[in-house]
Amino acid sequence: MTNWINIAQAAKEWVLEAGQRIRDSLNEELLIETKSDANDLVTNIDKDTEKFFIEKIKQYNLEFKIMGEEGFGDRIVSLDGVIWILDPIDGTMNFVHQKRNFAISLAVYENGEGRLGIIYDVMADDFYHVIPGSGAFLNDIRLNTLKDVTLEKAIIGLNATWITPNKRIDYQILSPLVKTVRGTRSYGAAAIELAYVATGRLDGYITMRLNPWDYAAGKLLIEEVGGKTSNLKGEPLSLLNPSSLLVGGPTVYDEIRENYLKDYQGK
Amino acid sequence: MTNWINIAQAAKEWVLEAGQRIRDSLNEELLIETKSDANDLVTNIDKDTEKFFIEKIKQYNLEFKIMGEEGFGDRIVSLDGVIWILDPIDGTMNFVHQKRNFAISLAVYENGEGRLGIIYDVMADDFYHVIPGSGAFLNDIRLNTLKDVTLEKAIIGLNATWITPNKRIDYQILSPLVKTVRGTRSYGAAAIELAYVATGRLDGYITMRLNPWDYAAGKLLIEEVGGKTSNLKGEPLSLLNPSSLLVGGPTVYDEIRENYLKDYQGK
Repeated sequence: MTNWINIAQAAKEWVLEAGQRIRDSLNEELLIETKSDANDLVTNIDKDTEKFFIEKIKQYNLEFKIMGEEGFGDRIVSLDGVIWILDPIDGTMNFVHQKRNFAISLAVYENGEGRLGIIYDVMADDFYHVIPGSGAFLNDIRLNTLKDVTLEKAIIGLNATWITPNKRIDYQILSPLVKTVRGTRSYGAAAIELAYVATGRLDGYITMRLNPWDYAAGKLLIEEVGGKTSNLKGEPLSLLNPSSLLVGGPTVYDEIRENYLKDYQGK
Repeated sequence: MTNWINIAQAAKEWVLEAGQRIRDSLNEELLIETKSDANDLVTNIDKDTEKFFIEKIKQYNLEFKIMGEEGFGDRIVSLDGVIWILDPIDGTMNFVHQKRNFAISLAVYENGEGRLGIIYDVMADDFYHVIPGSGAFLNDIRLNTLKDVTLEKAIIGLNATWITPNKRIDYQILSPLVKTVRGTRSYGAAAIELAYVATGRLDGYITMRLNPWDYAAGKLLIEEVGGKTSNLKGEPLSLLNPSSLLVGGPTVYDEIRENYLKDYQGK
């Protein structure tokens, strides 16, 4: 039988070590390339960090499969077996421009069931982890179940892009939501925004296109503290394909689904 | 003659002490009230912190005048003399919801000329200060002159509110800017966003209504590192009245003024 306690302990050590390597690299010159478009950045540090994890994970157990953002892992077409889902640096644009506000996101699923989620906000030294069913933690302090917050008193993570004409969603759908809520924020790193929802610093978060490595860990954190997660149509988040994302405490989530997205069918 | 070095040293000590008092208060229950509207929050800690500063400043020199957000200072109708401009907690909504991402903002002007600016991001323990003409610093490391960044590679601080129908600006004016820039962020604390511009973590920041205590220190920081500041019409920022705000590195500032706000006349 797989020993998840041991695996969680090993994963925690790898993440902290990777974080230290990233911090040590901050004074060196970055090699920055672009991927799908001019604003989709990747650096040598993203790649090195992914390779670091792959080596550690495969050394631990060669049967573990790895889905990594930078593509050095395995080609994953089904959720069978134990799959590690990794974003070595979530928020690469922040990493390049700000040298902060980025995170390592690492999750483990077994036959599609979440076993472990870790998000490490490297520069804030905030280490979030969850073992589903056994609690979610920030720096070893257990996170409380999310409080019930109404939309009028909620702070929502929402980037201005999604209320500007764009190819993913009619910009008029979410615009009324901005007026209803107490405030909106945008930090530019999905894993951090998801961890913020899990701690109640944000009451919800909406975005239009992420990959499984962006949310695989955050999804487990939020669900463990009683939050809800889905795509904008209310369907379960895919762990194999890109997806839109709506997460929040139950009241905030339900109010957004019912009052703003009821007729949303996607594009 | 006024000894600005001594005053800067005293002010630094007061700000650090106030920050420690705020951190110490985080486990106590907050008394939260609303001001101009249901989302304009103030707490007992905002008020206590303002009173703390007023006592220290008046003890130092009874002739110093103080403009404070919470109204315990003097009624300021002209810029004559030495005026301290204070926001005891900038980002009160973050303070209440997140217990982080808020700042103390403190500036001193003499006959309208900036003499000292301090922004203290309390939970990040980031202490920014500027003595105009003598350099801007983050935790005693001197900030570099801002690099020349084009709008296409810029990250701009801009809240979704300003591209949603609102009473301050036609939402279609800034919407095209969102599509041009590399990314937008919103942190919900003007002083922190201004400090981010001064460090190059953001390349610009736009917002529609702030009070002098929100930007009096940040303005000095940004100008010291070669950035530009004004209201959205390009006029100098008022230190006596509320204002819109456009700040950034020179290229980003000029491109936004020329290409997006040339015909903007305000509302």
